[in-house]
Amino acid sequence: MQIDAERLQCDLETNARFGSVDVDDGYARTVVTGTDADKRAREYFVRRLREAEMDIRIDAVGNIVGRWVPETADPDSKAVATGSHLDSVPEGGIFDGPLGVYAGLEAVRAMQDANLPVRRPIEVVCFTEEEGQRFGIGALGSAIAAESLSIGDAHALTDEQGTTLKTALDSIGFLGEGRIRPEEWDSWLELHIEQDTRLEAEDTSVGVVTAITGIARCAVSITGEANHAGTTLMSERTDALAAASSVVNEIETAAIQLNKKDAPTAVATVGSLDVSPNAPNVVPGRVDFTVDIRDISHESMMELVDHVQRSLDKVEEERDVETSFSLPRHRKPRDMSERCRQAVHETATEAGISATDLHSGAAHDTMRLAPFTDVGLLFSPSEDGISHNPLEWTDWEECAECTEVLAGSLYTLADE
Amino acid sequence: MQIDAERLQCDLETNARFGSVDVDDGYARTVVTGTDADKRAREYFVRRLREAEMDIRIDAVGNIVGRWVPETADPDSKAVATGSHLDSVPEGGIFDGPLGVYAGLEAVRAMQDANLPVRRPIEVVCFTEEEGQRFGIGALGSAIAAESLSIGDAHALTDEQGTTLKTALDSIGFLGEGRIRPEEWDSWLELHIEQDTRLEAEDTSVGVVTAITGIARCAVSITGEANHAGTTLMSERTDALAAASSVVNEIETAAIQLNKKDAPTAVATVGSLDVSPNAPNVVPGRVDFTVDIRDISHESMMELVDHVQRSLDKVEEERDVETSFSLPRHRKPRDMSERCRQAVHETATEAGISATDLHSGAAHDTMRLAPFTDVGLLFSPSEDGISHNPLEWTDWEECAECTEVLAGSLYTLADE
Repeated sequence: MQIDAERLQCDLETNARFGSVDVDDGYARTVVTGTDADKRAREYFVRRLREAEMDIRIDAVGNIVGRWVPETADPDSKAVATGSHLDSVPEGGIFDGPLGVYAGLEAVRAMQDANLPVRRPIEVVCFTEEEGQRFGIGALGSAIAAESLSIGDAHALTDEQGTTLKTALDSIGFLGEGRIRPEEWDSWLELHIEQDTRLEAEDTSVGVVTAITGIARCAVSITGEANHAGTTLMSERTDALAAASSVVNEIETAAIQLNKKDAPTAVATVGSLDVSPNAPNVVPGRVDFTVDIRDISHESMMELVDHVQRSLDKVEEERDVETSFSLPRHRKPRDMSERCRQAVHETATEAGISATDLHSGAAHDTMRLAPFTDVGLLFSPSEDGISHNPLEWTDWEECAECTEVLAGSLYTLADE
Repeated sequence: MQIDAERLQCDLETNARFGSVDVDDGYARTVVTGTDADKRAREYFVRRLREAEMDIRIDAVGNIVGRWVPETADPDSKAVATGSHLDSVPEGGIFDGPLGVYAGLEAVRAMQDANLPVRRPIEVVCFTEEEGQRFGIGALGSAIAAESLSIGDAHALTDEQGTTLKTALDSIGFLGEGRIRPEEWDSWLELHIEQDTRLEAEDTSVGVVTAITGIARCAVSITGEANHAGTTLMSERTDALAAASSVVNEIETAAIQLNKKDAPTAVATVGSLDVSPNAPNVVPGRVDFTVDIRDISHESMMELVDHVQRSLDKVEEERDVETSFSLPRHRKPRDMSERCRQAVHETATEAGISATDLHSGAAHDTMRLAPFTDVGLLFSPSEDGISHNPLEWTDWEECAECTEVLAGSLYTLADE
């Protein structure tokens, strides 16, 4: 199927103007839920949906759905849906989110232009607050669709100034009603930038995601005894940082060993670590740190979580420190559906566009939808893997190729 | 020699009122250079010196000297000096510093009361800003006496608000002229609280310090690559915190091994460690930390410094990180003089007061004076070793015993 690469680029470049920030290198935009930039981005998207003769609905958390019912489709049949998000991190790039939204719209327009006998309604979705920048919950819009958060609780979320999500959405005219029901979709595809270098390294145009990793976020604290660094002999110390350091290294070693065994994609990261009192002349009395564990296998994730706990037991015994452990965040891995992956691979092969299987270590709205319908996730290459940064870049030809595969895959899914 | 324990206690309790802070447990005071609390503490001390018929001089950085020339002394002979400091850390205890100042004054009063044939002038000193709380340099007053800092540079030091030391001293009426000349003293003794538990553990009344440890403060940074904790495989990482953790553990191991060999008092502490960007979902890109190395042997200190550098070379090689190392602070250990230690031991033995040799892991004004005259440092017991804290405590009888030993030792030194 022929897509209009220029029309897509024009939409993405127009969208990039909303919330744009002047930077020395690259293109930055700051589009945070309920701001003027968000309003303008949403209004332009709605206008473009209308121009493609799509019906618009807005749900209770501002998720936008454009629906096209082809003449060749049974209007009562389940829709094939696609989309992503338009919000960004502060000074984020111009592709993370918008590519999937406008590629979805372009796919519809391409099917319309080609006059294809599309057999299901097609819906194009913009999810609210995927980046979790203002109200603290990532993939917020799709969480409502998945009913993992109630509309009432979502409306009551507040930003740092105490403004509620409900007020913020109302202020930009995007407070609608009801919720998106992914269980009523035939299937779902999302196109997103890879945010990694695997496609670039393999010179491949499309990534076909096999699974989105789960995440176990551990919160750990180790308490020793703060003491004078000059007067406390080594043998008299209960040094919380020395204890934490040995745990950090054990966690790293455990992940690397698990990689060698049967979980090559498992990762464990101590990303945040705070020492108290954090003074050069005081033996550390307490260290708090996080362990972020991800894999496409829930079993290997839990093996690493167990390992963290065993390491803590060990330092308690060896170093007389006290430790605490909690798991404030825990989300299982999500496999993408075989049906969607196959549709993408077949479309790419037919179009002569290279595609390869890979997993996603980052979270996406698609993971929330996986329990409710057949889902698929496509990746476009990311130059140098850079994302959440003005230097985020995907060549326009690469955007077009991925959009072509997305469009063909949606058509295929609608035909099944 | 008989000292007046009640007079000493009265002085210390009066001094404790200046800058006192209400706390639930213990007695807190905040006496920072150039504040009203500092002014009041100094004025009371000067008043008490005058009441003991001592001459007062104030040097260019506010060090206070009270001088007593006994009738039995040659006024041109070198003085025997003693003292400590009156400033405190925020919400510090009431003994750290003041005990040595008022014990020195009490020693003079006791000699006067006993009408002893003291053969040298006795000087009692209060050094400025020992705690380094406002102008950032610890043992500032004695640094001027030791000429390791010029008066001009000291005057130009600024606090966080940009106020200079000169202005601060002038504002409380304690900006004098010239400098204390320790090279003109016959000898120097300081009484200070131990800030450790060795005396308490051995049920001993007086610590006779053999040496004050040197200090080598290393500033280290390790730079890896900040990356997405979800999308970056273990094999693709250059994790600055994992690298730093292995260095932290190697430093600890090196110090413990050195303790077993020939340096039982050597200590190495990573007390401050900052991770960047310090986010749970980002592989750490950079870690900055300090290593505080102390011992009474300069050789073993430098062995540990070498070990830090070798550990950094090793992680550079093994983990492909970049490291930087500097030694922003380096002070050699200082031995206390044999003559002063002997005077203290003899006095204690005669008085039937238990005394034991130990080293000081903490810095004191005395270390600055060591190159210029015979110096000694006495420790009183610290309950539970607690210091820089409202719970800092030394029993009044213990204060009196140590003051008795101090007074007798000063008399002995003046007699030689």
